[in-house]
Amino acid sequence: MPVNPIITFTSDFGSREHYVGAVKGVLIGNCPEATIVDISHDVGSHDLLEGAFVIASCYSFYPLRTVHLVVVDPTVGSSRRGIIAGTESVFFVAPDNGVLSLVYAKEPGIRVVAIEAQHYFRKPVSPTFHARDVFAPVAGRLASGTDMDNFGPPITDYVRFNLPPVHRVAGNKVEGIVLHVDKFGNVITNITPEDVERLAGVPASPTVFRVNGKEITGHRRFYTESNVDEVFSLVGSTGYYEIAAPKKPAAKLLEIRRGNKVEMEFQ
Amino acid sequence: MPVNPIITFTSDFGSREHYVGAVKGVLIGNCPEATIVDISHDVGSHDLLEGAFVIASCYSFYPLRTVHLVVVDPTVGSSRRGIIAGTESVFFVAPDNGVLSLVYAKEPGIRVVAIEAQHYFRKPVSPTFHARDVFAPVAGRLASGTDMDNFGPPITDYVRFNLPPVHRVAGNKVEGIVLHVDKFGNVITNITPEDVERLAGVPASPTVFRVNGKEITGHRRFYTESNVDEVFSLVGSTGYYEIAAPKKPAAKLLEIRRGNKVEMEFQ
Amino acid sequence: MPVNPIITFTSDFGSREHYVGAVKGVLIGNCPEATIVDISHDVGSHDLLEGAFVIASCYSFYPLRTVHLVVVDPTVGSSRRGIIAGTESVFFVAPDNGVLSLVYAKEPGIRVVAIEAQHYFRKPVSPTFHARDVFAPVAGRLASGTDMDNFGPPITDYVRFNLPPVHRVAGNKVEGIVLHVDKFGNVITNITPEDVERLAGVPASPTVFRVNGKEITGHRRFYTESNVDEVFSLVGSTGYYEIAAPKKPAAKLLEIRRGNKVEMEFQ
Repeated sequence: MPVNPIITFTSDFGSREHYVGAVKGVLIGNCPEATIVDISHDVGSHDLLEGAFVIASCYSFYPLRTVHLVVVDPTVGSSRRGIIAGTESVFFVAPDNGVLSLVYAKEPGIRVVAIEAQHYFRKPVSPTFHARDVFAPVAGRLASGTDMDNFGPPITDYVRFNLPPVHRVAGNKVEGIVLHVDKFGNVITNITPEDVERLAGVPASPTVFRVNGKEITGHRRFYTESNVDEVFSLVGSTGYYEIAAPKKPAAKLLEIRRGNKVEMEFQ
Repeated sequence: MPVNPIITFTSDFGSREHYVGAVKGVLIGNCPEATIVDISHDVGSHDLLEGAFVIASCYSFYPLRTVHLVVVDPTVGSSRRGIIAGTESVFFVAPDNGVLSLVYAKEPGIRVVAIEAQHYFRKPVSPTFHARDVFAPVAGRLASGTDMDNFGPPITDYVRFNLPPVHRVAGNKVEGIVLHVDKFGNVITNITPEDVERLAGVPASPTVFRVNGKEITGHRRFYTESNVDEVFSLVGSTGYYEIAAPKKPAAKLLEIRRGNKVEMEFQ
Repeated sequence: MPVNPIITFTSDFGSREHYVGAVKGVLIGNCPEATIVDISHDVGSHDLLEGAFVIASCYSFYPLRTVHLVVVDPTVGSSRRGIIAGTESVFFVAPDNGVLSLVYAKEPGIRVVAIEAQHYFRKPVSPTFHARDVFAPVAGRLASGTDMDNFGPPITDYVRFNLPPVHRVAGNKVEGIVLHVDKFGNVITNITPEDVERLAGVPASPTVFRVNGKEITGHRRFYTESNVDEVFSLVGSTGYYEIAAPKKPAAKLLEIRRGNKVEMEFQ
């Protein structure tokens, strides 16, 4: 067994209900030594992209062999299967519905198994609460040191959604999308400086961002670098370009929403 | 002392305030080995029924001898006393205001003591924050292995509210109520298949549910069994019949609220 | 290393985002033995006074040598530095923006060092996420037993905001402000019985509170001492006078807001 097993838990269950409490009870029962860490339970109901963004933005900051349980699960009980995705250093337990898509993009060598070994499940398995009866016992046993291959066969046809890739639309323009709007109103795009360098062939800096008919021409290193009350871009802590405003919600000021196209002109 | 003492904490304190933080500090101080698990702090303010539902729906998934601290406490500081309720396998610390009513219903052999042994309390005891000064030190000491009878005398006149019992209203009809509406808009009734079997004398299946003037005639095993966009019933993960809709809030679609009467016709 | 290191975490990051999860991963990585305790992540965005109130109201209930990480940080990435504030019994890690002001008021002997020892930081340091890259590794190492002086030089010019002090405005009147309105609508002033005794020269009791043009003439020891449906004052669990109503939000009833002046007449 790992010395200090850690299990994180991300879901759309909300903080008001009993669902999170039930799952954590089963996790502890299956791995009494585990430290259970809540990441977020306020992912939008059924919002796979938000769940994907949350877990992909923080899993890499955890110690080796942490198990991440991620349950955003709009089709629980259907034929949708559960999976374990794992590398030498990190494990994920989730429904096979694409919620790990952004993790797959960051971990090209990841292996995936379908969860089929029913003797690990709580019985009877509720058809509407696989998080409690299937995913939690599996995550607990995995954190206790059980090999991921004990839970089922390797698969390669797991579900992943593909975001529209960042692409070059003209000599000095790339296009992406708004991936997330955070609680401060910061607009997180899916464009990274590395994307721009790859597409431009050389490192390049933004001159203008265009989103929702608005132009953003200021560029900063951090949120309050300027006292001028304007919207600007910067490279955020997740590595993506963000559009922000000092102590104000840029998304609201510019009426930007997740999914909006983002055009970046560079030089 | 138990090897891995566990204390769960459920309250209506909200996640914004310092109250939860103060209580957890006292818990840790009184049982440094304990794993503290947050269940929910977003129970509706003063909402005893919601608190009762949350703890009754998840306590049984925790390891033996877990201590559950439940504070929904609209009359703190009045003559209302604190209690410990316990069995061989589980303990609850709460105000004596009925918030454990649904637990009592599930644990017929439970014993209850009044918390009177003031030497366990933090001093001075704030008349407005018994969770911090009375319940938390008691829960911590209980988790550390102190016998529940050390905290006060056994009582039998503890407060419990009785939900209107599920009853037969005609040859093939039973009546219950809506116990809870969850964040996904699923409507959780207080009717179980076991109730229906007991009242009907034989196992029986629902044909129609009637709530708030609406009829629900579809029946499923899980939320997305059908792709048809209709409201249906199913047996939920808490064992009760629920009324749900695929990826939509059934409660909103049918304007159903907690406390509404539910009539179920069976065959 | 302390036997049971404890790190609490208070922020305005919200419970929906990945930020809290990223910080907790770094904390655990830097102090695997630590118990991480969430206090609140729903402090109002950029609301330094609320953050100051939350941490000052609960830190003293934690065991000796607990490390409190407090991140409400509207100017992250600017020239604003990070600090450690500590005494023999408690430590705080925070941006130097005044969020510890109410702690300083309670701990007159506290020492403060500027965080400068970059070899403790995560690399590269994101200019927009010092909580993850600077404060979390420092808090983790501090909880592991590293001396606070190892992180940087002592300073005395740290930022603190001064609330308008409670003062006497007439022979039998003192004036303060509303410090906080909690989720139950209780109005927490910054006036304590000790303030009144100090200003009056003798212990004194309130006769009238005046806030926002309203008079409060009832005084109680706890929230439900009277069944009469009226607004009243009491000494709350944080030691301050509060204005409350039985099971109702006094702040809403009287349209009181944080920052309102409070006049208390005494005898």
